Amino acid sequence: MLRYGLVGGGNGAFIGDVHRHAAMMDDLTELTAGCFSRNYEKNLETARAWHLPDESRVYRNYQEMAEKESARTDGIDFVSIVTPNVSHYEIAKCFMEHGIHVVCDKPLAMNVEQAEELKRISEEKGLLFGMTYAYTGYAVIRQAREMIKAGAIGEILHVKTAHPEDWVISSVGQDETNMAGWRFKPEMIGDSLCIGDLGTHAEQMLVQFTGLHIKRVLAMFDTYPKSLPLETNATVLLDLGNGITGELWASQIAIGKECSPYIYVMGTEGSLEWHHETPYLLKYTKRNGTMEFLSAGRSYMNGASNRLTRVPSGHHEGYYEAFGNIYRQFCEALSAVKEGKDPGTPEYPTIDDGLGGQKFIAACVESNRNGNVWVEV
Amino acid sequence: MLRYGLVGGGNGAFIGDVHRHAAMMDDLTELTAGCFSRNYEKNLETARAWHLPDESRVYRNYQEMAEKESARTDGIDFVSIVTPNVSHYEIAKCFMEHGIHVVCDKPLAMNVEQAEELKRISEEKGLLFGMTYAYTGYAVIRQAREMIKAGAIGEILHVKTAHPEDWVISSVGQDETNMAGWRFKPEMIGDSLCIGDLGTHAEQMLVQFTGLHIKRVLAMFDTYPKSLPLETNATVLLDLGNGITGELWASQIAIGKECSPYIYVMGTEGSLEWHHETPYLLKYTKRNGTMEFLSAGRSYMNGASNRLTRVPSGHHEGYYEAFGNIYRQFCEALSAVKEGKDPGTPEYPTIDDGLGGQKFIAACVESNRNGNVWVEV
Amino acid sequence: MLRYGLVGGGNGAFIGDVHRHAAMMDDLTELTAGCFSRNYEKNLETARAWHLPDESRVYRNYQEMAEKESARTDGIDFVSIVTPNVSHYEIAKCFMEHGIHVVCDKPLAMNVEQAEELKRISEEKGLLFGMTYAYTGYAVIRQAREMIKAGAIGEILHVKTAHPEDWVISSVGQDETNMAGWRFKPEMIGDSLCIGDLGTHAEQMLVQFTGLHIKRVLAMFDTYPKSLPLETNATVLLDLGNGITGELWASQIAIGKECSPYIYVMGTEGSLEWHHETPYLLKYTKRNGTMEFLSAGRSYMNGASNRLTRVPSGHHEGYYEAFGNIYRQFCEALSAVKEGKDPGTPEYPTIDDGLGGQKFIAACVESNRNGNVWVEV
Amino acid sequence: MLRYGLVGGGNGAFIGDVHRHAAMMDDLTELTAGCFSRNYEKNLETARAWHLPDESRVYRNYQEMAEKESARTDGIDFVSIVTPNVSHYEIAKCFMEHGIHVVCDKPLAMNVEQAEELKRISEEKGLLFGMTYAYTGYAVIRQAREMIKAGAIGEILHVKTAHPEDWVISSVGQDETNMAGWRFKPEMIGDSLCIGDLGTHAEQMLVQFTGLHIKRVLAMFDTYPKSLPLETNATVLLDLGNGITGELWASQIAIGKECSPYIYVMGTEGSLEWHHETPYLLKYTKRNGTMEFLSAGRSYMNGASNRLTRVPSGHHEGYYEAFGNIYRQFCEALSAVKEGKDPGTPEYPTIDDGLGGQKFIAACVESNRNGNVWVEV
Repeated sequence: MLRYGLVGGGNGAFIGDVHRHAAMMDDLTELTAGCFSRNYEKNLETARAWHLPDESRVYRNYQEMAEKESARTDGIDFVSIVTPNVSHYEIAKCFMEHGIHVVCDKPLAMNVEQAEELKRISEEKGLLFGMTYAYTGYAVIRQAREMIKAGAIGEILHVKTAHPEDWVISSVGQDETNMAGWRFKPEMIGDSLCIGDLGTHAEQMLVQFTGLHIKRVLAMFDTYPKSLPLETNATVLLDLGNGITGELWASQIAIGKECSPYIYVMGTEGSLEWHHETPYLLKYTKRNGTMEFLSAGRSYMNGASNRLTRVPSGHHEGYYEAFGNIYRQFCEALSAVKEGKDPGTPEYPTIDDGLGGQKFIAACVESNRNGNVWVEV
Repeated sequence: MLRYGLVGGGNGAFIGDVHRHAAMMDDLTELTAGCFSRNYEKNLETARAWHLPDESRVYRNYQEMAEKESARTDGIDFVSIVTPNVSHYEIAKCFMEHGIHVVCDKPLAMNVEQAEELKRISEEKGLLFGMTYAYTGYAVIRQAREMIKAGAIGEILHVKTAHPEDWVISSVGQDETNMAGWRFKPEMIGDSLCIGDLGTHAEQMLVQFTGLHIKRVLAMFDTYPKSLPLETNATVLLDLGNGITGELWASQIAIGKECSPYIYVMGTEGSLEWHHETPYLLKYTKRNGTMEFLSAGRSYMNGASNRLTRVPSGHHEGYYEAFGNIYRQFCEALSAVKEGKDPGTPEYPTIDDGLGGQKFIAACVESNRNGNVWVEV
Repeated sequence: MLRYGLVGGGNGAFIGDVHRHAAMMDDLTELTAGCFSRNYEKNLETARAWHLPDESRVYRNYQEMAEKESARTDGIDFVSIVTPNVSHYEIAKCFMEHGIHVVCDKPLAMNVEQAEELKRISEEKGLLFGMTYAYTGYAVIRQAREMIKAGAIGEILHVKTAHPEDWVISSVGQDETNMAGWRFKPEMIGDSLCIGDLGTHAEQMLVQFTGLHIKRVLAMFDTYPKSLPLETNATVLLDLGNGITGELWASQIAIGKECSPYIYVMGTEGSLEWHHETPYLLKYTKRNGTMEFLSAGRSYMNGASNRLTRVPSGHHEGYYEAFGNIYRQFCEALSAVKEGKDPGTPEYPTIDDGLGGQKFIAACVESNRNGNVWVEV
Repeated sequence: MLRYGLVGGGNGAFIGDVHRHAAMMDDLTELTAGCFSRNYEKNLETARAWHLPDESRVYRNYQEMAEKESARTDGIDFVSIVTPNVSHYEIAKCFMEHGIHVVCDKPLAMNVEQAEELKRISEEKGLLFGMTYAYTGYAVIRQAREMIKAGAIGEILHVKTAHPEDWVISSVGQDETNMAGWRFKPEMIGDSLCIGDLGTHAEQMLVQFTGLHIKRVLAMFDTYPKSLPLETNATVLLDLGNGITGELWASQIAIGKECSPYIYVMGTEGSLEWHHETPYLLKYTKRNGTMEFLSAGRSYMNGASNRLTRVPSGHHEGYYEAFGNIYRQFCEALSAVKEGKDPGTPEYPTIDDGLGGQKFIAACVESNRNGNVWVEV
């Protein structure tokens, strides 16, 4: 069993608990060390709430954690970073420099330069680096990927991907006192609000679902409430290479869309469509109009999909389990590495995907700033 | 009861029969004269199949029809034009010059110049001119319009409108022999295939649903099968004025979308969403997330919507009935005019909408041709 | 073209207009004569509103109509009866005795004896007798029937059929002044309210969809509001013979169900499911769980279904068109008879179905009265 | 933190893993002891796979476990029983006799007598006894319960509850070699296959959702494949007292229904409807037809519902989390008891519910055996 440590996630932060449960869901790793908060008292409280076995492994800061854990023979195998975007770079860099593998929340960093440096370090050090794009963890996303590879929809013509939510407009409204958190501060999140927060999910869904990558973007941003410093809604035309086009929509102000990631891939012989509202279903239509709904876990599903399911078809898996699938695939690869085996092609989003997301953000920001023109990713 | 004549629609053309039934559905008009085909034998056959009472009012060409009908005291009150796009202009012009009101299939003409001339003539002659954008005839579209006017969703922020179908890719496929019809010939339909055919439906749905108009477009076209001369898929960014943005998607190659018009309007206080798959429902969500489905014909619906329903709520109305609502509102206005009354603000799409559609097509074509740049509509 | 007459349906009755349009939708018949109301003034008004060509064929009572129409060489070919249940028997009998074919609204009569006599007369006279069970007219019902015949779902094991609505509870509520209409009076409708009104629709849907007939019933009735004389909700266990069982639910007080006919047929190799909410779709699942949605009008649908569609797949047909399909099949059969041809096996509900419905009502009433015991149909 | 032990669930049994994760999900308890299999080697393997901290607490049989754990000062606080039905009684009895609280999988026992004895013992000993009816753990079930209590739908008139699956027909088919497992053996499961397995879920859903209890049943059973000894499909009429009726359907051979628990409650002022396919939504319709979809986690939901959600609205929770909610509420009550506080009214299904389920099974079996007659529960 692998040992891991967590940086961030304390103080009752929702996402810390998700990472903790997701990582441990398949008994491949256990939480062994952590620095959950800059406030040491809260840090300890979190450790106790989570029953961390050894309180001496609750650290006052991540540097101390990286040093001491890397010095132990039973030190953590990897660290999970769930802090605000601004500190991803320095924390990931520090742990990698101490030879520790990394799982990092998205987006990877504050800009492309940081992302590229992290990628360089991970390659130099030969470290695994996973990115927790949670929605790509649903089993049927893998089913789609394999079907597309196998030609089930022919050549891809056009892709729609989206990630609309309503959390900014429903919780913040026009009340500026609700805009005080780090999620609204450019110095904490970088140059983009909505694309960084949600657009990257849609972008990575496209990558995981289709195997394609975005070559160029043409982005249009909207900001509401107007007093916010960055965009809360973004519509992006996509050039996916080889004449394939697409469109991506991300929104934090889409009333009626609680959390509605969506992808639709049009091919010459068929289409595939997935809605987060029913995350266990994949709509598959052939050119003559025959419509099928494929359901996670059924015997007709491919192995790549079914190995990620834990319950019989018709029973549901949700956000924790999708998240868990990212960790599971990371942990399997890391276990292979530790055993001196070839971990194979990563089935979890990697630092390449993290860097891809960072470039995507930068290109969208530039495209919008320059009047909605095409920008290379 | 009004009398009307039909130009085109013979030879078993699906759309001719739709116009005929739709026009007569509410007993406001009857088919009295026609020129259904350039082939006189087929013309007569159609007249017989449709039980036209007086065969002397089946004409060899539309010019003869306009002349003779305008000369009768019991001549037709209006003409419906359901020919291929290329002849809309000349036919509409001819009938208007003979003082006959017009209903015309969309798109209005081959280009903006023709459309502007038709508008000028209709104004000079004081003639009504209706456009049969069928999908806007569903009762709940009117419900949405009135709710938006009344502030139910606050200020509009962003609009998504779409009209994807699969008819080209499912019927034509890669077989060039299936691409011989007039619908694929630029000289018959103008500069656009998909935007003219379906994009205009989405554009007019936006107008009827929201009351907004498109100020600028930035369009990206795709063509498949590649041997076609014009686009079959189009993604368009929209500038709707006053900082309101939007996006429009039209497709003829969207496998999995049989006929899926869609509109979603995001406001500061709520959103409205309509899917053609369940055309009697309107999804209304308030800012706090309260989701309601409003159903055509219920007592809580507004009068503007319920006056367009013919069956109790839960019973369905379809394409014929939606089409019928366009005719119904046109006929009511024309009856008012004939009785010397004020017909009021048109509730059917007018020549202004037809001209708007033509400008929209032209702007999209130009935007795409010039490398996806913003173009004024 | 056939000529037909209408008895009942005047005074703005919704259903009269439905019958009129439905009958004429496919240009196979025209409304030629009528007795729309017992009030002659209203009768004439209706005739004018509907543009009946010859006012001398508006009759003061149905007896006069039967006599005079049967005496004309251009008399009506068939009569449609859309009066309250209580008079179906006498009117149908009268027209049949004058040699006129009949279409009758459901339920057929007030009791089994009347129904049997009508059947006997129709057989003796060699007359066609159609029943307008409207919901069975949707094209995909025929698709299901043919698929089942062809073994697509193996042997049928169990059937669920339902017809819930909310019209009584939503319109009447607890207000007794709203319960004054004929629909609530046993002397006008017979021994059953909900089973007669809606249960018969569900029963006939079962017959048309599966080809099976109900052998025995075990019925449980509920009445709300309590001051009503008859049931408004009914749950019925079904014995369909050969070990096949089923369940039928009808309700007039099902808040949340505007008009929700439903059928689900479980077989040994697959299942078929239809919801009136999306009447153009048929869900087909095979034993391994493969789920398909079949859509009216697609090329993969069978001919028996597609010949009943009038619009391309994805465009909708509704209540009028489903109703129209009943008339269309009746008129085709009657035209064949008039031309001396074999009309073939009726594809419209016949007097056998009407009699079956009457026996079903009687058996349900008896079963409920006797304490929910099995009763032969 | 509570300590618990598990009896059964080893050998890779799906349900063992569900119980383990569900119990620990909210950090209220940890797995401390177990007897996962009768085969000691497999027992140890399971313990290792699950990282049980102390192997000396892996027992050869449940009797030893009950004895030794009850003798320790740090012994388990409660035991979870996830063995086949046949051994629930003896195991639960044994642990209770050693003063250990119990959580037991459903159905509670093999017959009513066993269930009553267990209830008697739990009362005599003052022990908590929870039943893991997993589907009732979804947060919105609690929302419904509170809304009904508060009068949101007026007086209840009729209830439909169902639990159809396809697992028997899809996995077993007609192949007798697939019918060898304990789930098909009366000596292992009791007198009922489908009602015991799935009908009890539907029955308990009714209890938890509405607060009502079934007074009498009239049951009709079907068996397919015919070589099975017990029923695989059951339709049950319900008498819920005070003139309230209902219907329950359970099936193991419902192709097209992977796992489709459903409940619909009709009241005089509104209705509530829940489908397992979208377990986070609750459809609420008022008498005038206003339809709302309430979504788990939104601010407008009541506290009883929202305290059971772990993710923001729109993000999903599934089977593990619903299961976890049963454990969570049991553990909270048990913690209160241990601290000498009043645990309050149980919000988890208790031994009363387990006994109710057993009586329901017995009554259904008797009703069906006696020819579908009413039987008191």
